[in-house]
Amino acid sequence: MEDKIINEQDLENWRRTHYSHQVNGSTIDKLIIIMGWISSKRDHGNVLFIQLRDKFGDIQIVVKKGKENSENRVFDILKNLKEHSSVGIKGKVVEQKKSPNCVEVIPHEIKVLSVSAKSAPFLTNSISTIGIDTRLELRALDLRRNYLQNIFRIRFTILNSVREFLTKNHFIEVNTPKMISTATEGGAALFPIFYYDKEAFLAQSPQLYKEQLTMAFENVFEIAPIFRAEPSRTNRHLSEAISIDIEKAFVNYYDIMDLLDELISYIILRTKEVNSIELKNLDIELSEIKIPFPRHTYSELIDKLQKSHKYIRWGDDISPKILKDVIGDDFYYIVDWPLSTKPFYVKSKINSDAAVSKSDSPVDSSESENMMVSESFDLMFGPLELSSGSTRVNNKNVLLDSMKKKGLNSAAFDYHLRVFDYGIPPHAGFGLGLERLIMALLKVENIRDTTFYPRDIDRLTP
Amino acid sequence: MEDKIINEQDLENWRRTHYSHQVNGSTIDKLIIIMGWISSKRDHGNVLFIQLRDKFGDIQIVVKKGKENSENRVFDILKNLKEHSSVGIKGKVVEQKKSPNCVEVIPHEIKVLSVSAKSAPFLTNSISTIGIDTRLELRALDLRRNYLQNIFRIRFTILNSVREFLTKNHFIEVNTPKMISTATEGGAALFPIFYYDKEAFLAQSPQLYKEQLTMAFENVFEIAPIFRAEPSRTNRHLSEAISIDIEKAFVNYYDIMDLLDELISYIILRTKEVNSIELKNLDIELSEIKIPFPRHTYSELIDKLQKSHKYIRWGDDISPKILKDVIGDDFYYIVDWPLSTKPFYVKSKINSDAAVSKSDSPVDSSESENMMVSESFDLMFGPLELSSGSTRVNNKNVLLDSMKKKGLNSAAFDYHLRVFDYGIPPHAGFGLGLERLIMALLKVENIRDTTFYPRDIDRLTP
Repeated sequence: MEDKIINEQDLENWRRTHYSHQVNGSTIDKLIIIMGWISSKRDHGNVLFIQLRDKFGDIQIVVKKGKENSENRVFDILKNLKEHSSVGIKGKVVEQKKSPNCVEVIPHEIKVLSVSAKSAPFLTNSISTIGIDTRLELRALDLRRNYLQNIFRIRFTILNSVREFLTKNHFIEVNTPKMISTATEGGAALFPIFYYDKEAFLAQSPQLYKEQLTMAFENVFEIAPIFRAEPSRTNRHLSEAISIDIEKAFVNYYDIMDLLDELISYIILRTKEVNSIELKNLDIELSEIKIPFPRHTYSELIDKLQKSHKYIRWGDDISPKILKDVIGDDFYYIVDWPLSTKPFYVKSKINSDAAVSKSDSPVDSSESENMMVSESFDLMFGPLELSSGSTRVNNKNVLLDSMKKKGLNSAAFDYHLRVFDYGIPPHAGFGLGLERLIMALLKVENIRDTTFYPRDIDRLTP
Repeated sequence: MEDKIINEQDLENWRRTHYSHQVNGSTIDKLIIIMGWISSKRDHGNVLFIQLRDKFGDIQIVVKKGKENSENRVFDILKNLKEHSSVGIKGKVVEQKKSPNCVEVIPHEIKVLSVSAKSAPFLTNSISTIGIDTRLELRALDLRRNYLQNIFRIRFTILNSVREFLTKNHFIEVNTPKMISTATEGGAALFPIFYYDKEAFLAQSPQLYKEQLTMAFENVFEIAPIFRAEPSRTNRHLSEAISIDIEKAFVNYYDIMDLLDELISYIILRTKEVNSIELKNLDIELSEIKIPFPRHTYSELIDKLQKSHKYIRWGDDISPKILKDVIGDDFYYIVDWPLSTKPFYVKSKINSDAAVSKSDSPVDSSESENMMVSESFDLMFGPLELSSGSTRVNNKNVLLDSMKKKGLNSAAFDYHLRVFDYGIPPHAGFGLGLERLIMALLKVENIRDTTFYPRDIDRLTP
């Protein structure tokens, strides 16, 4: 019996009449068709208890070895089907106080739609005990696990709430090209492409395009993949990630931080409304957050850190590890970073005109330039960087000067610089990593479990 | 005066108090701050009429050469500013029956935020007369034109309505990797990437991933870029496009066509509701559409076409040009394509088991196999293909057999095939080209004007 081959059948005219959550007291005595995969199976010899899972949950199927041929056929098939197999069940709903939704289904007919030929390494209710790499090899199956189901349902709510919030705030969604001719941030960590007969790269961010689009649309956002040839093997880096990018005209980085505060607040509000069940399943309590989030200047933090870490100097990047010593485990900003640590398009905090005239002067001003501060922020959650934003340079001469200082070949950016001849408004914006935001909100340890099919230096499949 | 350099100023504490559409009868006598770019300028010597454009429209600014210094300063600056320059205006709202919104603004102060240093080749109200390539070189500026503003506002509505419709129909949004190890459709038209030390490709479609995801989520959709190294130079092909992909478990291609009918219908309904002004501006009347759209089988069409095109044989692809002879200029399906014309994952119309046993038989059945039909459809709009869909193979042996027939190395797809051991449900879906849908609905002649920054064989910038 164990090895008996069960033939898969075509769907033909069978269609689901009810999803699992629609099978309840109101459907008692009705003949229904349900479809799904076997999430668990208890075999009591002549009685089988099957949990059939669909996208809304489980429904209990009870089948006994019976007197009639049709009953026995269903019994034999279900007895031999492994968990994860997909079936259609035509059956009657009966009351069953002990089952979770107070009903169960007595099958009359079964259609085997897809047989699980192997014993799966995990079931839908498995808590992860095997390594993530083993799970990722069977990712589609892994995603059937309750833990990941909860995460990805919340992920959908987060995306929806971002779009709702930005639409209400007069943003328009755009899509910018992912195949580009030059590096935005200077060349490191790019994936090269063969673009017909030309060299090209995958976009690390939509930065220059979203800035340009403020010319025509003022407030734009994009939710799309970004690509970084990130050599590090960590729990918080991906080679392909989803970035929530916004850019807004006629504002500076303070306005953008206000907006980001409200966005995060709205995401949490909506997630609590929509996903109370999933949050409970994950044992996550999203507390009320207080905005504005604290804004610490970079210089203040360096001063504090120097008390315990004497080797740190103004101008250094701040490593997440040492941040723990001075900051709590919640949302906060680090603002006014040294200009030298930021890309060429980030605006200096002093007046732009002054910056240009200084660089034109024959006096060596490299010392004071190294001390220049930028109109920039990072949104952090404990040691995790979630978002980076800034006021951008919108004057062509300042931008050219900044590129020169960063050692970039401005000729390669001609396609970008040329629109700065036509009155591009002042603008500011941020990029927010979707996966990292999910990690922060849901306490997910490995960023790979916040994305469907993670990509990293070691992984290109599935 | 003409060449006098006007200094750009920092935004400082200036912020917009009103968008253009908020300046109306209710704001008369109020002191407001508006911001935007100069969309047009009429110079009557001592009086200037300026249209200041923001994301909602224009507001008229009238400034006279006056007696006070402050007035003259504003006058001199606006006199010398070219169209497209970005400014902030602090001024008073006054009644003006002749202006479009019955008010105009008398400026008291001006802040020049960004100077248009050159005379732009087009203004916001320019109807396109210059070639598209010239426009694309200054795309961000081009996008300020009214024609494109209308198109991209409707594009946003289309995206929103797709998400609304699919969410209501219990779909969840997913994101699948764009960097992949193998070609989905067999290897043509792929962009190769250097993925660390490995060879990889940009995904032509999310096909295999979205299929896999039906295992865990049943109904999934993705709206994301797809990449095709398309060698043809036409008005309807892009190298990077946005694809609306859906996949649904426990249904076949008929259900999917029903869903697509309703989706298109919903998009049109919502566009008419949200964008009546933009549709009027574009002189587009979206008529009520009747669903279901007509479904012509491939064989019927071949029969009809053979009357006028004797060289056409069953099994040939049907070129858009000759379709004009038999089909109108509206939505319709071509269904049941020869299996030989479709990718390996498309299900044959006869029972899968039969197909496998036939291929196992020693009798040469290549003739009859060449005549096999698939459970597939193309959604057309006149000669334009908008969408392709099908029931997919969900049996591993049938899939292996199909790959063999298409000459694919199944070992390269091991990462995909392996989940077929665990009960992947029957499923069907489609990919719908966003840009082509916009072309069809808005009668846009060149697909490049339905995307922000088009990519094709000749164009990698801006």
